[in-house]
Amino acid sequence: MSAPALIALDWGTTSLRAYLLGGDGVALDTRASSAGIMNLPAGGFDQAFEETCGAWLDAARLPVIAAGMVGSAQGWVEAPYVETPAGADALVAGIVKVKTARGVTVHVVPGVLEPGALPNVMRGEETQIFGALASDAASGAAGGALIGLPGTHAKWVFVNDERIERFYTFMTGETFGALRDHTILGRTMHPSPTHDEPVFLRGVDTARDAGHPGVLATIFSTRTLGLTGQLTAEQQPDYLSGLLIGHELRGLNEVLARQQASLAGRTLRLIGNDALCERYRTALARFGCHDAATVAHATEHGLYRIAALAGLVAAPARAA
Amino acid sequence: MSAPALIALDWGTTSLRAYLLGGDGVALDTRASSAGIMNLPAGGFDQAFEETCGAWLDAARLPVIAAGMVGSAQGWVEAPYVETPAGADALVAGIVKVKTARGVTVHVVPGVLEPGALPNVMRGEETQIFGALASDAASGAAGGALIGLPGTHAKWVFVNDERIERFYTFMTGETFGALRDHTILGRTMHPSPTHDEPVFLRGVDTARDAGHPGVLATIFSTRTLGLTGQLTAEQQPDYLSGLLIGHELRGLNEVLARQQASLAGRTLRLIGNDALCERYRTALARFGCHDAATVAHATEHGLYRIAALAGLVAAPARAA
Repeated sequence: MSAPALIALDWGTTSLRAYLLGGDGVALDTRASSAGIMNLPAGGFDQAFEETCGAWLDAARLPVIAAGMVGSAQGWVEAPYVETPAGADALVAGIVKVKTARGVTVHVVPGVLEPGALPNVMRGEETQIFGALASDAASGAAGGALIGLPGTHAKWVFVNDERIERFYTFMTGETFGALRDHTILGRTMHPSPTHDEPVFLRGVDTARDAGHPGVLATIFSTRTLGLTGQLTAEQQPDYLSGLLIGHELRGLNEVLARQQASLAGRTLRLIGNDALCERYRTALARFGCHDAATVAHATEHGLYRIAALAGLVAAPARAA
Repeated sequence: MSAPALIALDWGTTSLRAYLLGGDGVALDTRASSAGIMNLPAGGFDQAFEETCGAWLDAARLPVIAAGMVGSAQGWVEAPYVETPAGADALVAGIVKVKTARGVTVHVVPGVLEPGALPNVMRGEETQIFGALASDAASGAAGGALIGLPGTHAKWVFVNDERIERFYTFMTGETFGALRDHTILGRTMHPSPTHDEPVFLRGVDTARDAGHPGVLATIFSTRTLGLTGQLTAEQQPDYLSGLLIGHELRGLNEVLARQQASLAGRTLRLIGNDALCERYRTALARFGCHDAATVAHATEHGLYRIAALAGLVAAPARAA
């Protein structure tokens, strides 16, 4: 086991994850808390940082790098967006530093902005993507990589020549929660302790098939399939989840079609929690995509890689 | 002014509207309250009915007809759905009666079910549609009518030969509320006292144009256009409204395209509140549809017409 070399922070809206990384980029220790930027009192960044990382810094003076919403306008210090196409070098050039009460410098990685009529933004995902590119050969394949990051705001990112070229944000996870908790659809639903895959895939298939007028209409079938005895209350959440993920993948497939491409037969990579990535994998299979492995440790690897490029640590032998 | 002939109730989830109609089907008096079926205590139907209609019934013994969620499984009495294709005769045959404490019989009009892989249901709208057909020549045009009912759960209904043949439900209004009040999109929004039509139409046009991967993605631009200084906080609600209505109409247009038809150049009719119908009219114009008048008094006319067909009142001379 190598000696501690870097403190790496994934500091988002609702959580803070801290990694103590060795010189090989592998985590020696981790801390997680709910000290996301929206959960902090005004000026609470320094205290949250101390509570999470103070003991590590007492033991050794280490460089610190952070990515995520901590660099937003509502964060500790604003690290202005880098525009697409964005490589790791541009992220390094965009790092903004903030000095802590302890006198340590935190290096905050900027997010990425794709300008245009429908602008897109990410903060944190850019770092995970460069982590995935470093640790997975398939995600840096010739002809460009496609990486999906399922979640509250799912991202689908096109990477070419080690640069983030284009990406899309789907509010799939947050829309699911809002529909379940705050519309009539929730009234006939009961939570289910288990995942009903056939019902989930029925939702995916419904969204995938062309014969409907879009997601604003198909979601109502969650209720009417219940009213007509075709879905139980416990099945309705998985059906709605399948519908929304199916609509997301259908939309992605339409984007690919305009480039004479398709999800069918494509190699792609996923970054995210295992259960959610597994849902996406079964849904992707319905679109003919059977090569969609999850890239593990993308966050730590990305933070380490950017820190190495920034000269904060030595490049690990295993990184690409 | 003709003498009172009928008490007609539009009894929905959140409100109760009562009309005292003359023999010509025109309202002599109206009452409205928030005594919708979800707002009543258990067994509260009789009391709400008495409070709303008692004075009218004290003055004259009148037949009573009701439509809407009052006939649902959670209503006063369940009037099982009539299946498509459904004419006014089928609605009359499906009427279920309930006796009030006063000894008056309330005739409850059934809703309509379109069975299938994506079932659809309506309760109340079927009555408005037959009201619109009776009072507006264009909506009963040869070749079939298309009637839109904007709202919480917007309906688009295809009528042919005086029968409801097919319909679609779009959860546009309720999804708008859930996204605004319960997702990140609301965080950067401020309510605006005025309707910003150019911004609304920007949303409509964005949804209409093909170059995006669907509504789950375009809604995120409400936030990113704010982040990039292209929409103020006050403009974001109108933009989101335009996006969702635009996606609804785009979906409807895709359904029409499969029948070698289109919104462009089409005559259709709207039923609903004036401000919302006006929004839909400006949005429909972006799809090339310039003949979409609102049909007034569709609810009362529909209730009167069904009551006349049921023999509860004489047919008014003006009805078709």
